[in-house]
Amino acid sequence: MGEEISNKQVILSNYVKSSLKESDMSLRTSKIQLKIPSGCDGAVLVKNLYLSCDPYIIQSMRKRNVYIPSFKLDSPISGFGVSKVLDSSHPNFKTGELVWGITGWEEYSLIKDADTLFKVPDRDLPLSYYTGILGMPGMTAYVGFFEFCSPKKGETMFVSAASGAVGQLVGQLAKTAGCYVVGSAGSKEKVDLLKNKLGFDEAFNYKEEKDYDATLKRYFPDGIDIYFENVGGKMLEAALSNMRHYGRVAVCGMISQYSLEQPDGVHNLLYLLSKRIRMEGYIVSDHYHLYPKFLEMVVPLIKEEKITYLENIAEGIESAPGALVGLYFGRSVGKQVVAVARE
Amino acid sequence: MGEEISNKQVILSNYVKSSLKESDMSLRTSKIQLKIPSGCDGAVLVKNLYLSCDPYIIQSMRKRNVYIPSFKLDSPISGFGVSKVLDSSHPNFKTGELVWGITGWEEYSLIKDADTLFKVPDRDLPLSYYTGILGMPGMTAYVGFFEFCSPKKGETMFVSAASGAVGQLVGQLAKTAGCYVVGSAGSKEKVDLLKNKLGFDEAFNYKEEKDYDATLKRYFPDGIDIYFENVGGKMLEAALSNMRHYGRVAVCGMISQYSLEQPDGVHNLLYLLSKRIRMEGYIVSDHYHLYPKFLEMVVPLIKEEKITYLENIAEGIESAPGALVGLYFGRSVGKQVVAVARE
Repeated sequence: MGEEISNKQVILSNYVKSSLKESDMSLRTSKIQLKIPSGCDGAVLVKNLYLSCDPYIIQSMRKRNVYIPSFKLDSPISGFGVSKVLDSSHPNFKTGELVWGITGWEEYSLIKDADTLFKVPDRDLPLSYYTGILGMPGMTAYVGFFEFCSPKKGETMFVSAASGAVGQLVGQLAKTAGCYVVGSAGSKEKVDLLKNKLGFDEAFNYKEEKDYDATLKRYFPDGIDIYFENVGGKMLEAALSNMRHYGRVAVCGMISQYSLEQPDGVHNLLYLLSKRIRMEGYIVSDHYHLYPKFLEMVVPLIKEEKITYLENIAEGIESAPGALVGLYFGRSVGKQVVAVARE
Repeated sequence: MGEEISNKQVILSNYVKSSLKESDMSLRTSKIQLKIPSGCDGAVLVKNLYLSCDPYIIQSMRKRNVYIPSFKLDSPISGFGVSKVLDSSHPNFKTGELVWGITGWEEYSLIKDADTLFKVPDRDLPLSYYTGILGMPGMTAYVGFFEFCSPKKGETMFVSAASGAVGQLVGQLAKTAGCYVVGSAGSKEKVDLLKNKLGFDEAFNYKEEKDYDATLKRYFPDGIDIYFENVGGKMLEAALSNMRHYGRVAVCGMISQYSLEQPDGVHNLLYLLSKRIRMEGYIVSDHYHLYPKFLEMVVPLIKEEKITYLENIAEGIESAPGALVGLYFGRSVGKQVVAVARE
């Protein structure tokens, strides 16, 4: 038997109704053996170092959603994280190795199916990056842009939720590919960031715009070739109205729609036909075989500082509920991470 | 100067409001020289043999539409037809040759830009087929199915407006590709036709169904891999709800939406994401380079009677307005053609 120690956890206390509240979560201290139970093959026991606050987590905290399965009540929330292996019954992972993948929102986790984990391949960059630019959100941006947008040099691209973990990388990848890139975000601070630090050609605060159609016409007088869709609803409708012929819409998320009882109707799908638009949804987990190819491209761009990456790190597992609520209300600038422990 | 003879024409008298009426069109007899005017290079003067009644024509008869340009008032309607060249100033076409392509709804037409015409390549099959299965609708079916549906043997396919010129061929092509095919149509007679003559696995009368979602669940208990979209609106919404993961929606038309002031809202686009659906619109004219490849496949299938093709031929140019109204109200079974003259 291994050592039994206390394990602070973030529990889903009740399903989220409309807006996310800190009181939807609670902190609980339980006990955990720092050894894999017998008969539990293919598992790893990890110490969690960084947890990732991602918009999809909030969707899983709702009772009904069409997008992904809901979490169980009274259990720890789960999400992406960077962890250190303390014990392993999986042939690919050894004690002491660093991994990233789905883990629990707690100090220590027994991950029963370690097949879904990735080894941290490069220690030169901050470990927390594997919750973001070098992890799931980074892969989401890379796959969405290169596999679903069919970008060509000189094309115009609109990215919604552009200051998010995915959006900011998509925009920067599009700049390296020679596109003209405009992003939308929800505050002046984020708009400044997009224009002044992340290299977007233009950006606007959607909360200050009354008529998205007119807004997009202002930024794209000749139309949009690529729409990187993160929000859905009215913004999608406005983007479709402004697409150019043979445009592509990569559907990465529809965050404005997740919390609605009745999602918005999109009335102008006839444009798909008249403009020959391709609109395609994807989920990054179908594309993880591209991870090595992705690293080969992105790691040098980060090291050569050709890509900027911004993080907002909250300290301690106790700060996780507040950090997630901050993400929900768009308060965090840059990727929201929770540091549970340093290595 | 060539002979000047009388030329009966079908004129657009006023733009269509909501429903198409025969009185939106009128017959006019004008005069035409059977010779190409001097200084008019690249033209052909043709005698029209068959005219094609296609749904898109009705859309062009409306003042405002997002889909295609509107016709001019007090001018002859234009559309696809099969014609005989009486005079030519175009290097590719000779007097006496048979062609198909865009012509006027009149007995004789001066086609100023003959580049858009195709020669009739095979005289073994009825000439009227070049308005349908061997012309634009046939190519629309072929391109939509093979270029946009990515069909695999054993997959399930739903075709709306399945008894139309495009739908009936799409369904039969899908059967030759080993798919399970269900079609929707607007009358018992059409449903019988789909099931008993055109080889569809199943078919239903959408006018007798109150809940399309439940209907599609009945015919596709395991979901739809491919939706060949001809109608839009509520049927699209129901199809999206019933798509399988990695499903494809080829958007060929949205006929239920063309006449609406405010098109229906589609509320479940979040399924694009959760089910990784690809939805893509296309217009056949972008793909005419595939015409020889299409003929190579389809002509033998017709000759070997592996594909059934049904026509409804109205006699005389005077019958054209009534034939188009019949198409609009779904009265015609099989491809609606107007025979203006025999060769």
